[in-house]
This record gives sequence, C-alpha cells and structure tokens, in this order.
Amino acid sequence: MKVYKDNNQSNGESYLVSRQTKPDDTVINVNGIKIGGKEIVIIAGPCAVESRKQLLETAKVVYSGGANILRGGAFKPRTSPYSFQGLGEEGLKYLSEARNETGLPIVTEVMDTRKMELVCKYTDIIQIGSRSMHNFPLLKEAGKCNKPVLFKRGLMGTIDEYLLAAEYILNEGNNQVILCERGIRTFETSTRNTLDLSAIPILKRRTHLPVIVDPSHATGHNWIVPAMAKAAIAAGADGIMIEVHHKPLDALSDGPQSLYPDNFAQLVKDVEKIAIAVGRSIYHNIQSPA
Amino acid sequence: MKVYKDNNQSNGESYLVSRQTKPDDTVINVNGIKIGGKEIVIIAGPCAVESRKQLLETAKVVYSGGANILRGGAFKPRTSPYSFQGLGEEGLKYLSEARNETGLPIVTEVMDTRKMELVCKYTDIIQIGSRSMHNFPLLKEAGKCNKPVLFKRGLMGTIDEYLLAAEYILNEGNNQVILCERGIRTFETSTRNTLDLSAIPILKRRTHLPVIVDPSHATGHNWIVPAMAKAAIAAGADGIMIEVHHKPLDALSDGPQSLYPDNFAQLVKDVEKIAIAVGRSIYHNIQSPA
Amino acid sequence: MKVYKDNNQSNGESYLVSRQTKPDDTVINVNGIKIGGKEIVIIAGPCAVESRKQLLETAKVVYSGGANILRGGAFKPRTSPYSFQGLGEEGLKYLSEARNETGLPIVTEVMDTRKMELVCKYTDIIQIGSRSMHNFPLLKEAGKCNKPVLFKRGLMGTIDEYLLAAEYILNEGNNQVILCERGIRTFETSTRNTLDLSAIPILKRRTHLPVIVDPSHATGHNWIVPAMAKAAIAAGADGIMIEVHHKPLDALSDGPQSLYPDNFAQLVKDVEKIAIAVGRSIYHNIQSPA
Amino acid sequence: MKVYKDNNQSNGESYLVSRQTKPDDTVINVNGIKIGGKEIVIIAGPCAVESRKQLLETAKVVYSGGANILRGGAFKPRTSPYSFQGLGEEGLKYLSEARNETGLPIVTEVMDTRKMELVCKYTDIIQIGSRSMHNFPLLKEAGKCNKPVLFKRGLMGTIDEYLLAAEYILNEGNNQVILCERGIRTFETSTRNTLDLSAIPILKRRTHLPVIVDPSHATGHNWIVPAMAKAAIAAGADGIMIEVHHKPLDALSDGPQSLYPDNFAQLVKDVEKIAIAVGRSIYHNIQSPA
Repeated sequence: MKVYKDNNQSNGESYLVSRQTKPDDTVINVNGIKIGGKEIVIIAGPCAVESRKQLLETAKVVYSGGANILRGGAFKPRTSPYSFQGLGEEGLKYLSEARNETGLPIVTEVMDTRKMELVCKYTDIIQIGSRSMHNFPLLKEAGKCNKPVLFKRGLMGTIDEYLLAAEYILNEGNNQVILCERGIRTFETSTRNTLDLSAIPILKRRTHLPVIVDPSHATGHNWIVPAMAKAAIAAGADGIMIEVHHKPLDALSDGPQSLYPDNFAQLVKDVEKIAIAVGRSIYHNIQSPA
Repeated sequence: MKVYKDNNQSNGESYLVSRQTKPDDTVINVNGIKIGGKEIVIIAGPCAVESRKQLLETAKVVYSGGANILRGGAFKPRTSPYSFQGLGEEGLKYLSEARNETGLPIVTEVMDTRKMELVCKYTDIIQIGSRSMHNFPLLKEAGKCNKPVLFKRGLMGTIDEYLLAAEYILNEGNNQVILCERGIRTFETSTRNTLDLSAIPILKRRTHLPVIVDPSHATGHNWIVPAMAKAAIAAGADGIMIEVHHKPLDALSDGPQSLYPDNFAQLVKDVEKIAIAVGRSIYHNIQSPA
Repeated sequence: MKVYKDNNQSNGESYLVSRQTKPDDTVINVNGIKIGGKEIVIIAGPCAVESRKQLLETAKVVYSGGANILRGGAFKPRTSPYSFQGLGEEGLKYLSEARNETGLPIVTEVMDTRKMELVCKYTDIIQIGSRSMHNFPLLKEAGKCNKPVLFKRGLMGTIDEYLLAAEYILNEGNNQVILCERGIRTFETSTRNTLDLSAIPILKRRTHLPVIVDPSHATGHNWIVPAMAKAAIAAGADGIMIEVHHKPLDALSDGPQSLYPDNFAQLVKDVEKIAIAVGRSIYHNIQSPA
Repeated sequence: MKVYKDNNQSNGESYLVSRQTKPDDTVINVNGIKIGGKEIVIIAGPCAVESRKQLLETAKVVYSGGANILRGGAFKPRTSPYSFQGLGEEGLKYLSEARNETGLPIVTEVMDTRKMELVCKYTDIIQIGSRSMHNFPLLKEAGKCNKPVLFKRGLMGTIDEYLLAAEYILNEGNNQVILCERGIRTFETSTRNTLDLSAIPILKRRTHLPVIVDPSHATGHNWIVPAMAKAAIAAGADGIMIEVHHKPLDALSDGPQSLYPDNFAQLVKDVEKIAIAVGRSIYHNIQSPA
C-alpha cells in the first residue's frame, strides 16, 4: 500500500492510521453521538458565525431539520486579507450559546497553534481545514489536545498524503480523528472543486477512522449539494457536513453554496432513505431544544 | 451559462443539447429498453471481446446478473501500439452472436470514421470513447448514422466542452445521445482517474439527454466499483456501465477493474435498493435467454 | 523508464522512439531546413487561414520577421460546431500559393483520416493537433504517408503516453516525427494551459526525435509568448511555433494569442540571442521571396 | 484583472502587491545583494541542514560555484511524521556559522508562528514554504517581522490566490517579499511537479515584487534542473534557488533533485550566458570567504 512508501519505520503495518494496525472501525463519541458507527451523522450550520442572531436562528433551523452537530466558523481562512475574517472569540461564545439552546454539540475551525487552547475551551470538535492539511505544527498541537478532530483533506492532497498527515495527529496521542473529503482541485470549472467520492471506499479500506463528506465546499453551488450528499452516503460515508444559512443571500461568505432551511430538511429526509438502502440509519436527536 | 460562451448563434438558448431548447427529458429506446426514463439501465460486459468463448460466457453471466445491455470492445484504443488492439470485425460478429443468444442489445466502440458503417451494421448502440471526445469528424459521422450514441466524456474535458462536443452529433440530425461520465484526470494516483459525480446533477440541469456513469474505467479497481455505482444512482444517473469478465485475472485488458460475475450480481441488487430509495427502479429483462 | 511499462515486447529498448534504440538525434529535412540539428527553426503564421489576402499578407510579414516555415489551419478543430471550421481545400490552395510567393515550406493540420491524402498533396509537413493525440487511426495513417509529421502533445497527455502515441506513427514506417509541447491542462486559470517546459529535457533524454514548443496555444495571451519562446530555447527546444496575424484584433480564431508582426520580428531577434547563449543559432532563410 | 475579484475595498488598484499601486520594481537589499534589480541572484544549498560538517562543506562549494545566498532547512515540513524533521535551533546555529565562514547571507524556512522570533534571530531571509501558502496566521506574523520574506507559491495555488496571500504579508507592514515559483501539481508523473514558468511574465506584469524560481523542488530530478534554471532566467526571473549537496547520494531528504558541486558551478556559468542574452548579469560576490 502506497501509504507506506515514505516510511522510516521497519514495518509499514505499524502506522497508527492503518487498518492493518487496528482492523476494527474507530467510533468517536461526541456527547453521546457516535461517529463511525452504524448511524449516519449530520453536521450543519453556517460557513461563518456572522452575528448572535444569525447563528442562533440557523442553529434552530438545522436542529429542526435534523442536524446532529452544529458547525460554524469563528476564525475564517480567507483568500483575501480584506474579506471577512470571522468574529474570533466572540463567535466562539455565540456557538457555545447555540449549543446551550439546541443541545447540539459544536464543531469549529482552528487555524493557529496559539488559538488551540482557546478554541478547545469552547468547542466539542476541533476542525482542521483544507488549507491546513500540511500545517504540521497545527496537526501536532491537535494531537496533544483531548478533543475529537474533524480533519479535512487538502484540496491538493493525495489520499496517501492525507493519511500521513492524519498520522501526525495520532502520533501525538489523539486517535479521535474524523476524516472529511471536501473536493480536490481540478481543471473543471463548473464546480468550485471536484468532490472525490472514490476517496470514501479507499479510505474505509486503508484506515479505521470514520469518513464524512462536505459537499457544500466541494461543489460551491447549493443546488448540487443534495445529489452529492446522497451519493456520499451511498458510497459509504459515515456522515455529511452541510452549509445552511437562514438567509443565504445575506451570507458574508459562501452564500451560493448554502442551503435554505427547507432544502436542508428535505435533504435529511432523502439522505435517510439512502442510509436505509445501504443498511444504515441516521442519528435522531433524543434531547429536545431548550 | 458558460456553455454558451463560444456561441456564434444569436441566442444561446438555441443549442440543441440545452434543456432550455427542449425542457423534457430525452428518452432513448433501444429494442424496448428506455434510457433516460424512470428505470435505471445496467450495461455490462468485458472491456474487450477477446474470443468467442470469453464473450459468450461473460454475456451469459451478465445477463443472469441483471444486465440489460451487453458491452464489449472490438476496436480497442490502446496507449501502446504493441498492446492488444481488439479483434475487429470478428469481434463484432461474436457480439452479434451474443445478442442472439441472450437477447441483450449490444454497445461497442467505433474509433474511425471509415469503420462507422461496418460497426453500425452490427451494433445497437455506437460508443464514442473518452479519447475521441474531440474527434470532430467522428462526432459528425455519428450524427449522420441512425443509431443511438453512447458518448463518453473525455478524461480532460470540461462539462462545457463535453456539451459542445455532443452538440456536434445533434447538429447533424442525431439526437439519440447518451452521455457518460467516466472519470477525469487529476493528480490523485490511488485511482486511474477521478470519477466526477457532480457532473450528473450539472448535466441533468443543463441538458435533456440521459446521463450514465462508468465507474470501472474511472476508478481502475474492481473493489471500488460497487460503492461508486451506488453513488452514481444516488446522484441521479440514468444508468451504469460496468466491466465484468468471467475470469478477470485472464483479461487481455483492464483486468484489475473488471468485476467477477458474483460481485456483479450483488452490485445489481445493491443498486436496485438505491434506485428505489431515489424513487426509481431498475429495468428487468422480460425476454429469456435463448 | 516508465515509457516501457505497457510493453508487450520482450525488450523495452526496442521502442522505435527510444534513444536507447537510436542514440543519435533524428534530424528532419524539410526543403533544406533541418529540424533537430544545431539550428533553431521558427514556424509562424496565423491560427487559421481565413482568406487569401489574410494569409498572403501574414506570410510576407512572418517571412520578413524571420520565420522559416509557414503555419496555417485549413481544417480547424473547434470546441463549438458553430465556430469557424476553416476553409478546407480552399485554405490549402492559399497555403500553396503563399509557399510559392515566399519560398516558405508549409505545415497544416489534418484531423480526418479521409483527408490525409488531400492534405499531403498540398503540405510539406502534416500537423496532428493536440486533440488528436489519441486518435490512433489518424496516427497510423500519418505513419503511412511520406511527409514529416509535426505531432503535438495532447493537453491531457502524460509524457509516457505521448511517446507511446508517437510510436504508433513510427511503427507504420514513418520516423520523420517532430514532437511539440503546447501546454497541458491544469487548475491555473491565468493562462489557457500550462506550458510544461520540463518536457523538453525529458523528451530530449528519452527520445531521438526533435522537440519544438508552441507557446501561443499554451498561454493564450500574446504578451506572454515572447518570454516563453525564449525560455523554450533556453531549455533546449529545437524550434518554436508562433501564431502571428497581420491584424490580431480581426482574427476569426485565437486573436488574443496572436502576435503583431512587429512583436514577432522582435521575438526572433531575442530568441536568436538565447540560441547563441546555449551554443546554437537560428536558421536564416537563404532564398528570397518571389 | 482577476486578482481583484475578492476585493472588499472600493478600488482594486489599492492592492499593495499590485503594480498599479506601485509601478516601479521593488528591489530588496540583503546585506548588499539586490534582489529584483538588473542582476540575477543565485541561492543554493542543501534541502536540509543535516550536520555541521555537511552544511559547512556544502556552503563552501556553493560559494565557490557562484552562489550569492545560502539556503538550508532547519525546520523541515515532511509528508510523514516519521521522516527526518530537521535539526531545529541547532541547524540555525550551523547556518549562522556557515554565514560567518563564507560571507553568504542565509535563508531558512519557518513553519510555525511560535518559532518566528527564533528564526528571525538567526536568518537574513525568512522562507515561507509551499505548504504554508495559505497559513494565514504565519503570513501575518511574517508581515510583522523586519526581515525579507522568500514566499513560495503553493503547489495548488493559482496566481491570483498567490498574490492575495502575499497581500497578507504586505498588509501587515512588510513589503520585502520575494515571490518564488516552485512547480504546481498536475497529472504529469515524470516530474515531481510541473514548473509553471508562465507565472514569471504574469507575476512581473501584475506585481512589483521580485520573482525567483526553484527548479529543484519543481522537477525532482537533478538532471532536469540546469535546463529549467536557464529557462527561468530567459523568461525573466530575478533569481534561482538550487538544491546542492556535497554528496547527494547521502542526503537525508531530496537527494535525487540535488546537484553535485561540479554541476552547480557549470549551471551558474550557463545561467550567466542567458542572463547576458536577456540584457542582465549575475551578481558576483565581492567578499572573500573567511
């Protein structure tokens, strides 16, 4: 297996991410929600936390629509220094409040080693974004914290490189890593990136870690997202991460790829049918919102 | 819509492939099998026709497994001039015999304008392969024949270019075109190409033509094929094309991506569940084999 | 060397394109102009032959500017069926007339096996374009004619595939093949394609065939062309092919990448300096125009 | 110009990297060596600092061969956590010693915001590597230090994104940024990456910052490096960065792309000829080694 080619160890099978090292699936428990088990997990929310009102309203609609975990960016990696960069700690506080109101655990991105402690204080799952796949100091820091890590594939990363990057996290002692395919860069211009769903069966074969898919960032168009969410589950993904905005046209970032609340609720119903068709189910929230 | 950008006509909407020109789905009838309707169509068979025995045996197993149409190459485009180039007309005759024995219509590739008449004499559907997407004289010739055309996306073709290439066929008077996503070339090396399933919802939105998916050539590994076949149907494809060999290890071309007969039969059962989950069904052969 | 991996022969070294088979450089003589020798050859002309007047005027300015061979398309592969497709045989006649007036040999593209004989009747060098790299019937036909073949790399072709495609031509008995790097498709959008100049030293090491570069199609912008023409010669190319139009703003195809006559003449002077710096020279026309 | 598309400012021309904002070339002075002026600058050294002996020996041979600046990694970003990760501060000390012995200024990579102060204490130029192109916290930190920054293009970065990433550095007050093309990821497998030399004329047109080229990382093979170094200068680069190892076969990283000392000395001579052919010269060290 190619993942072993850059191996300085005597035996390739000793990679911590490898299914040869650990044949059974890793199941990650986030406040009772199991990621990587029989049940499909739905993560949803806005690209960025823009305001208290926007986050709380979106949190309620994704809860009602069937989301199990709330996403939202407080620190935003943006191509231009003049684009909205996120609300920082203020955004983390709103996420925390949204968790209290809905009961949904939260996931938010950390970009800077110096912010790891701060983000960990608020979040249930740390996200490491696509642009940070090869930020090795950040990976090592994530490996030292005691939170699950949602680790996105880099848009230019091969699957071999992706697994070796995940190894950086496990090697520091944290094996609670959720892999996430989110599209790779190709010549095709109709979509923002090309969602590489083949990565799902490949990753499931090579590693014991759970694999989810983010069709929103990959495609860049909200009308493509439902088809790709269903395809992801049909291909064996353990969950999906969907961008939803209570008013997509007003979004400060990634509006065109955000679903309207109604479309999200329909997507969850459609995804459930696919989950059942592949012998799985979707996780239903037990707890009622406050 | 970008597809209109190279337009010399006064009005982009007049493209023959465009859904704006023809809002309702084109349904192509091949010996009673409807491609592009509610029912999913399964095309299967070996990469290449290697011998009479190989083809007839494989034809029987794909018929039993649930295939509706038989595929097999008589003229093979091969990277090296020293690789097996196909049996030519002899292969076409075996295909014809396999149709007689199983009742399955056949699809086979034509690479050369000068062979169009010969291939049309034998086949039910003409295939234009990925390497020929921009072979404009061949497209024009296919536009002049009265057979349905299974037209594969080039591995380097954007969706815009692909639709404009299909326009060459329709512009000659043949609107019986079946589009086929079969993977695009990217930097990822774990798969032969990267299957671009986002192309399905995009094509279904932009054009009225049916869209099928070939996960065998895209991935290059038979163990990835079932997951991607299911994903294709979940994403809205009208059919799938699967490579099956009665003895994959003996195949003269593309053995590693060919399914064993048993795996193919299981794949069809699994695909049917997905078809039902998206409100469709799969086409069941009425006719019994001779 | 990877070029041998698809080898059905007992010994990789027997590939006809391989430098191991033929260690000394192949030098191709076109009406006294030697391609692949010490002298750099300059090919120039319009993308398409648009009219008698346009071609003759452009032929004169490229002759004056220092071109050794005239290029111009009579049969144009175009993405859309509604774009200008070339003048066909009429264009070939104008090319022939331009040769008579300037003394420059001509190169023009053939896309269709059925036009090979016609094109050979008029041209000095047959061009096989980027979109035809994997049109195997066309390659075989080119291998049977007794004209030099300017064979462009496909925009999606690896170097290994490119050499194997060239092998199709040599295998039919024609070893007068000029390779041409013209850009590959990548994610970068500032240029039409990405000119892969690394292909020059790689091709020169692997094969004995001459290698030229077409920076016009690769970059798509005339202001990038001079820098890349110089770079190509610095990297070891045996020639360059440049699009020039006597009035780029009026061009029916590829206007933005066509050089103005003055810029072309300057480019030739600048390229000559680079040629000398790498121990070569450029070919100077002996014959005066009629 | 596309670089402005993500602009939140009222006027695209106010981008700090833009040549419209600052029409004249930025020339960066490093201990008297001017980068971005008429003279070509040669940076050379090993991929990684492996030992005191290795660095000092290589420093001497690159000095003798004509290098103006010494490169060497103390903190190495490696795909696998089990590969050699660099000597850290010990490596910085050896670099400092090598500078004292040869008089050559040094450039070394920083990957972690928390090491910025440490690296700045030792180095003359801070390098931000390809994998860090979108590490925005690191870019901001580099923008706050008072050292020149050698900022490499990401292997997946478009030119537009690259310039916007550089803007992060300038926006913090540091306009001493040297851009560096080092290859982009494509489907071609003969080279490690595809060196995009078209980026040189494009960057020189869009920005006032100096542009250098690293052909060693781009190609991955030492025998391709000289051709691409010459091509880079022919295309208008202001300098080149070359990996040299006193014993490439013993290198702990990137041995196959490292030049032997003799080849490096020859490369500098050949590059000088190209520099003269394009009306420039190469910088000759004034100071003698200690």
